[in-house]
Formats: sequence, structure tokens, C-alpha cells
Amino acid sequence: MKATATFYHAGCPVCISAEETVARALDPSKYNVQIVHLGESPDQIGNAEQAGVKSVPALVMNGEPFHINFGAALADLKS
Amino acid sequence: MKATATFYHAGCPVCISAEETVARALDPSKYNVQIVHLGESPDQIGNAEQAGVKSVPALVMNGEPFHINFGAALADLKS
Repeated sequence: MKATATFYHAGCPVCISAEETVARALDPSKYNVQIVHLGESPDQIGNAEQAGVKSVPALVMNGEPFHINFGAALADLKS
Repeated sequence: MKATATFYHAGCPVCISAEETVARALDPSKYNVQIVHLGESPDQIGNAEQAGVKSVPALVMNGEPFHINFGAALADLKS
């Protein structure tokens, strides 16, 4: 069964670079990659926080947060 | 032609988690993943620096550095 990898971002240049390079490079035979734009879907911020995401862009895989470079703090997306 | 993705690490727990989850999840039809342990191969630190790597673990893909969480600063691996 394929696992889900969730890529959280906020549309920032750092986010787009990570999405285009890292998130799209994940093996599609192993992962369904779900892309969540927290600026457009602020209702997902709670899920990101629960997964341990502190900043975007970040990938959540196997329940673990992997922050990729730094675009914006999650706290700054809430205002 | 497959591209090379280089995963730089230093054996730290944060590094191992990123290696096992993110580096191994890259699509093998698109990327040859090269794993470089900078503690064991300090001669590779210069290459990592040139690619823009500031800390490990980090993936270099398409010439861009993607720092994944934070294990250790590259500067601290030089001593």
C-alpha cells in the first residue's frame, strides 16, 4: 500500500523550489504526494502543527516532519 | 538520463531519519542517490560547501541545496 507524503507550503519561492525538486522527485510507486498550500487552506494549519511542522516548506512522511530549507514560520501564516 | 541526488550527512540521528525516509523515497527512475558521510569523508566537505550546503542533513538536487531539518552545521564538521 502506498503511503501519503504531505508537502506543506505557502507559495513562497523557497517553497516552490522544494516542491518542484524534492516533492516531485518522490517515488510514485511508494508515495502519494499531497500538496497543501497553507495560505489557501488555512484550515490545514492545525494538521500541520499536529504533525510537528514548524515552518514551510515541509514534508510529512511516515508521521515525521522534514523541514526543507526555510520559507516562513507556521506561526506567521496564522495572522 | 538519470540525475544524481547527493545526500550529505554526518551520522547524527536527525541525519539517519532523513536518509531513511526522504533520501530513500526518491524515485529511482529519476535519481541516482549518492550518500556521503562527511564525518567519514571530510574531503567531501568542500564539494558540499560549493553546492551551498550549510548544515546536514542536506540533499543536493539539480545543483540546489535542500537542508532537511537540522543535525549539525557544516562548520562544526571541519574541526
